[in-house]
Amino acid sequence: MNNVEKYVRTIPDFPKQGVMFRDITTILQDADGLHEAIDALQKLIENEKVDVIAGAESRGLVFGMPIAYNLHKPFAMIRKKGKLPYETISEKYDLEYGHAEIEINKDAIKPGQKVVLVDDLIATGGTMEAAVKMVERLGGEVVKIIFLIELAGLNGRERLKNYKVESVICYEGK
Amino acid sequence: MNNVEKYVRTIPDFPKQGVMFRDITTILQDADGLHEAIDALQKLIENEKVDVIAGAESRGLVFGMPIAYNLHKPFAMIRKKGKLPYETISEKYDLEYGHAEIEINKDAIKPGQKVVLVDDLIATGGTMEAAVKMVERLGGEVVKIIFLIELAGLNGRERLKNYKVESVICYEGK
Repeated sequence: MNNVEKYVRTIPDFPKQGVMFRDITTILQDADGLHEAIDALQKLIENEKVDVIAGAESRGLVFGMPIAYNLHKPFAMIRKKGKLPYETISEKYDLEYGHAEIEINKDAIKPGQKVVLVDDLIATGGTMEAAVKMVERLGGEVVKIIFLIELAGLNGRERLKNYKVESVICYEGK
Repeated sequence: MNNVEKYVRTIPDFPKQGVMFRDITTILQDADGLHEAIDALQKLIENEKVDVIAGAESRGLVFGMPIAYNLHKPFAMIRKKGKLPYETISEKYDLEYGHAEIEINKDAIKPGQKVVLVDDLIATGGTMEAAVKMVERLGGEVVKIIFLIELAGLNGRERLKNYKVESVICYEGK
């Protein structure tokens, strides 16, 4: 077991029967857990040259921001549609029912910048795929995508197969 | 002018005529701006004894998490209703039209813990007032409330008058 894994709270049958929900709030609610989680994520990019850290609302912000601070890099905030006041570009992606849309400021990433994308969890990878598209539309280069938790059974990596993807904790199931 | 203020982007008439929107994305998009903003917030609590840092979705998470990491404290995540999978308590608060509701895990704060609440901006103070109520319902003691930006013309401090409140940047208007 990874050292961070012991801080994860697993809630069976949430939000529906058969799903094992991986709750990261218990990581954050423990000073050591929080510290170890950020350090473990950061370790995944220690050999990368990176200009910008980016993450999507809400939990990509939670885990991305301390990394940006620690590495003294800017942070590109990706938000749900309609929350950013400046000029933006957006991408839609499919959910189980319907779709969602995320946005980024046009000036959040400059052409040629090397970008690391951070999120708490990869399930089907839909949100992250949309985030990658936006970074590339702005001329950024996605050098690595890192997750605290990976649900390998949902095969989200397949959608991101052209990129370097790493996770701190990998669960076999869904 | 405060040193962090130069990174704020002001967007006139957003989201409506007469409002000067204070955009913090330009702080985050600058490595120095991000660093200085977090350091300035942290300085506001350097003399406090604190057990837990807490912040509300989304921008309270953005500014609260690096502080929690730096001080090696747990972080209590406050989210919009329906996002937290575990047992929660919630508080409603009024918006200009209608109301909103925020939630916190019941185990995010333990009785007697000293809590610092963080947010990016105080306008009318409604969200923060609801956050304070939840912290106190869980037995926590709010030792200080800190904001990166304060819109003094909206008088949000009045609602929080029983608490120590400080902000890094204070704008006179609304």
